[in-house]
Amino acid sequence: MAEEDESNKRHRHGLDRTLALSDGVFAFAVTLLVLDLFVPTLSPGASSTDLWQALSKEYISFLNYIFSFLIAGVWWNGHHRGFERVRNSNSTLRWLNLLFLLWIALLPFFTKLLDQYSTLQLGVVLYAVDQAAAGLSLTLIWLYASSKHRLIVKNLDKRTIGFAAVRSAIAPIVFLVSIGLSFIDPNFAIYSW
Amino acid sequence: MAEEDESNKRHRHGLDRTLALSDGVFAFAVTLLVLDLFVPTLSPGASSTDLWQALSKEYISFLNYIFSFLIAGVWWNGHHRGFERVRNSNSTLRWLNLLFLLWIALLPFFTKLLDQYSTLQLGVVLYAVDQAAAGLSLTLIWLYASSKHRLIVKNLDKRTIGFAAVRSAIAPIVFLVSIGLSFIDPNFAIYSW
Amino acid sequence: MAEEDESNKRHRHGLDRTLALSDGVFAFAVTLLVLDLFVPTLSPGASSTDLWQALSKEYISFLNYIFSFLIAGVWWNGHHRGFERVRNSNSTLRWLNLLFLLWIALLPFFTKLLDQYSTLQLGVVLYAVDQAAAGLSLTLIWLYASSKHRLIVKNLDKRTIGFAAVRSAIAPIVFLVSIGLSFIDPNFAIYSW
Amino acid sequence: MAEEDESNKRHRHGLDRTLALSDGVFAFAVTLLVLDLFVPTLSPGASSTDLWQALSKEYISFLNYIFSFLIAGVWWNGHHRGFERVRNSNSTLRWLNLLFLLWIALLPFFTKLLDQYSTLQLGVVLYAVDQAAAGLSLTLIWLYASSKHRLIVKNLDKRTIGFAAVRSAIAPIVFLVSIGLSFIDPNFAIYSW
Repeated sequence: MAEEDESNKRHRHGLDRTLALSDGVFAFAVTLLVLDLFVPTLSPGASSTDLWQALSKEYISFLNYIFSFLIAGVWWNGHHRGFERVRNSNSTLRWLNLLFLLWIALLPFFTKLLDQYSTLQLGVVLYAVDQAAAGLSLTLIWLYASSKHRLIVKNLDKRTIGFAAVRSAIAPIVFLVSIGLSFIDPNFAIYSW
Repeated sequence: MAEEDESNKRHRHGLDRTLALSDGVFAFAVTLLVLDLFVPTLSPGASSTDLWQALSKEYISFLNYIFSFLIAGVWWNGHHRGFERVRNSNSTLRWLNLLFLLWIALLPFFTKLLDQYSTLQLGVVLYAVDQAAAGLSLTLIWLYASSKHRLIVKNLDKRTIGFAAVRSAIAPIVFLVSIGLSFIDPNFAIYSW
Repeated sequence: MAEEDESNKRHRHGLDRTLALSDGVFAFAVTLLVLDLFVPTLSPGASSTDLWQALSKEYISFLNYIFSFLIAGVWWNGHHRGFERVRNSNSTLRWLNLLFLLWIALLPFFTKLLDQYSTLQLGVVLYAVDQAAAGLSLTLIWLYASSKHRLIVKNLDKRTIGFAAVRSAIAPIVFLVSIGLSFIDPNFAIYSW
Repeated sequence: MAEEDESNKRHRHGLDRTLALSDGVFAFAVTLLVLDLFVPTLSPGASSTDLWQALSKEYISFLNYIFSFLIAGVWWNGHHRGFERVRNSNSTLRWLNLLFLLWIALLPFFTKLLDQYSTLQLGVVLYAVDQAAAGLSLTLIWLYASSKHRLIVKNLDKRTIGFAAVRSAIAPIVFLVSIGLSFIDPNFAIYSW
């Protein structure tokens, strides 16, 4: 019994660190996004109106920041929802999670790219690829975890497991479809998100 | 019983991650503030006096840094006080918390803006807007959490709940009033904080 | 009984977050230090020898980095040692801890300053002031916590408490003395650390 | 009994913070890596093809980013595997862990160096030195922890302990060997990883 406790503690411990690393990457990525917002440099004696005009040129960057923050929030919630039903971790699950974090850590880069080249198809496509990759990693995490009885919480019926898998696949599919749409017009892709 | 334990664990787990993400964003935002302090570049052979003069031109930046650190400390304490009485989380609460963190993550940006344009009304107003938005999000979090019996700790009477709501609303109201004051003089607004 | 558990959980919870915020600031500050190490820009066709020469000009920056990492490690260990004996937190303790973190978050700034102006007395003095302030905050934390029976672990005798207070005061005193030494020669101060 | 609980709690608490600091440094270091990816600046009216060409010049940086992310993942997993069997911490173990984190925090710097000077032997050697130092610190952590009965989980037999030590020594040995290989050709060293 005591031995089992020790073992349980170690497993829980493993999951705790996986989540701590993930939360750290998320916290860092969303705060890094803010570094793309630049304080405009005005000549001395500039008025509030001048500042407003300088800032309003940046309003797309600002909307982009909020949009990317919300997107990161969606992934964090998705990650949260998935791992709520996971109770143990193993090496494979940790690597799948690192794969997911790889795409999350790239968010600030692709956001900057989209910010500067939102009228070009390529900027839009690369952003969508990053999002789709993040989403597919999350689906993979769930498919793997739910295939191992030992990794998820007890008493989950097959229907709940299947529903969660489908749900986690929606976001990547939307982003993959948006890549198709971007061939017609980059803006179509952006609106589809 | 075991099932309930499992469920409790999952809920607690959800709250843990919400707090971990929040603490991460705070830790990051306050340390990012320091990036606005620049080490002056002096010509070789400069003396301590030269360095002192160069640094003293930056003393407002330094005061600004300490002020913003303290402001962030006030929000962290407010967030802490609120969540001390929360015991579970759900999707809505997590999103309200993300909304709060959005404004916290923007702190380094608005601090830099205030730092450069503290004599302009707009710099002061935008800083106050960010602070008021952070405060209102915190009030929203408490109003939502306290409206759901399941989310807060047991044995809280209505008076305590109402007092906490009023208390969390004071800061945003001060900042909203300061926006009004800034129409008279930006400095009035700054002193009111 | 259940009520007491609930209350205990809340208190522990408060301490957990204080420590999480502190660990976050430490993790961030030590990693930020690395941003001061610059990869030299060489002309195409440069050899390993050229790179070595370019890097060796930076070796003081590198030693500085390691030194500041170790200093941060000393503070983290001191913070760790102090809080090992703290079991609850309250608003005052959280603010004293934020005061400590303020000086830790400033470490990357003062390290950069020392790096560039280590031959000037002022660079050395300001670095020592930051260190002494961090140390004094830590002493304050312990003096406050140990004065409240409710905040520290049970079964600590007065001698242990006093010894811990003296121990935590050593580092700030060394740094304060080094400020005096710097009036003779900045290098004396650096060696005294 | 209650006293022992208190003592256990303090120890666990110590380990928790060591892991929290480590996870924070890892989360930060992998996200900092992304700052080396630059969004190319194109003239207005540039097409997707221009952007693609500009980005494809950076593809080595991108591969480098993914490679370093994976390397950091390998260390995180190694750190995780080692600490899964550690149940307490003491001052020496914390310092060994800080030594390990020192090399992890340097990863973004050496990655940038390798990125810019991958054709030079020195860039490759320094990267390998950082990796080997990280690996040796991890081996040291395990050798120290497993030598103290009090620090590791119960019921570990000598064979498991020895196997874990050998396993943790493989990575640093590979990197040390690669330093030798780099004297023949820097690319040999890179492929050996």
